[in-house]
Amino acid sequence: MDKLIFISNDDGYDAEGIKQLAEMVRSYGDVFIVAPDGGRSGASMSISSHTPVQNTFIKYEEGTETKGSLTVWACTGTPNDCTKMAFEKLLPRRPDLVLGGINHGENCAVNAHYSGTMSVALEGCIKHVPSIAFSSGRTAEDADFSYMREYVERIVEMVLKDGLPLEVCLNVNIPDVMPLKGIKICKMGLGDWHEEWQERDHPRGGKYYWIAGYYAPHDKDDEESDTWAYEHGYVAVTPLQLDMTAYEVMKDLELRVC
Amino acid sequence: MDKLIFISNDDGYDAEGIKQLAEMVRSYGDVFIVAPDGGRSGASMSISSHTPVQNTFIKYEEGTETKGSLTVWACTGTPNDCTKMAFEKLLPRRPDLVLGGINHGENCAVNAHYSGTMSVALEGCIKHVPSIAFSSGRTAEDADFSYMREYVERIVEMVLKDGLPLEVCLNVNIPDVMPLKGIKICKMGLGDWHEEWQERDHPRGGKYYWIAGYYAPHDKDDEESDTWAYEHGYVAVTPLQLDMTAYEVMKDLELRVC
Repeated sequence: MDKLIFISNDDGYDAEGIKQLAEMVRSYGDVFIVAPDGGRSGASMSISSHTPVQNTFIKYEEGTETKGSLTVWACTGTPNDCTKMAFEKLLPRRPDLVLGGINHGENCAVNAHYSGTMSVALEGCIKHVPSIAFSSGRTAEDADFSYMREYVERIVEMVLKDGLPLEVCLNVNIPDVMPLKGIKICKMGLGDWHEEWQERDHPRGGKYYWIAGYYAPHDKDDEESDTWAYEHGYVAVTPLQLDMTAYEVMKDLELRVC
Repeated sequence: MDKLIFISNDDGYDAEGIKQLAEMVRSYGDVFIVAPDGGRSGASMSISSHTPVQNTFIKYEEGTETKGSLTVWACTGTPNDCTKMAFEKLLPRRPDLVLGGINHGENCAVNAHYSGTMSVALEGCIKHVPSIAFSSGRTAEDADFSYMREYVERIVEMVLKDGLPLEVCLNVNIPDVMPLKGIKICKMGLGDWHEEWQERDHPRGGKYYWIAGYYAPHDKDDEESDTWAYEHGYVAVTPLQLDMTAYEVMKDLELRVC
């Protein structure tokens, strides 16, 4: 049986990133997309608990001798809704691989916590399917992601062949530089956002705010962080685990509060 | 200067959980709430990237000799928007403590990833303020959370006194049982959701779906997991770290893909 690859994203089913990623990986098997019907940046792992969700069939393209079929659905929910919907209601069988992206914009460091693209991989990971999120420094709506194809293929081939440890998925961030310097296995960088809100005057009085700001890493010079690798022209591959337990502080906490 | 305690949640500024938590901790200092203007369950760390956000001042109560002042704002955004808004636009000074909750419903195990309550603590943690999320097994809208007051106080006092390690916050889940058996320091449980969508017929044709389902732990019998502690009548305190790096797989990944 051919491999089945599920893809979602947070830029919408019609974004260049997801369309180009689908074409890059159709040589490995059938591709099945369930993605939001529009942009959902910053959706994190959110689910639509207060509104119901609907799905719209977009298209089906048959496979050929050299590439798998392509199925596309749009969903009114979040990226995580899309993944959950795909697994339970739309996918013809359990997928061999879950991909998020290609995101138009990077998701390095703690920004993985806010990322809808990353949520696709984390949810795939919860469901015990090898999962990867791809994000690019190219942010234009009509961006050409072919410059990163070689690396997408190398990472996808490795994961299809060897799998990934249970409860671990990959956060892959590829800067907008050529030539890329190769792959670097990284740890998640740490940092914070500043000047997070842009204020506007409401025409009928009062203020409203758009989220914005700039990210300031706390570990700019830490060569092991994904932020450093990304800033220095490497393909930053960060293995993330679902288990966020701070094991090292457990004993001390026990002494203090139990 | 009195301590300043910031609180948000995902059930809305007017929910019993946040109102009762505020009263429980006013004896430690001034309390400042910025919380959603309605329910935002399952919001995770999401931010409102596609819609602007507005704030509404709800009320101010002066402090007394025995308790701090109380300020309440409502915000149209997500729990994480509320926290970011508070830090940059609304809080009079940097808080000494960030609290999420009390959530009407538990957030054990990987469900912390979906939780808006947890996002408040995670965002506080990103901003390097000691942060705690409180969730209860009592889910009723008019729930009385006084049964857990002793434990809320004990944990808050410990954190106000000693702080928490940088990049680490607490996920506290308190079951709806009396008497509680005491505090247990736990690791994050692992598991997955099943039958996640309830299907309904749309009056004008087609289907729509509500997210639902049941959680099935993978580690039901693991006495170190928060799921086990919670199910067995303990106050489950799980220290969570921002850094999700799967350090143990880095070397192997490097050999396979670099």
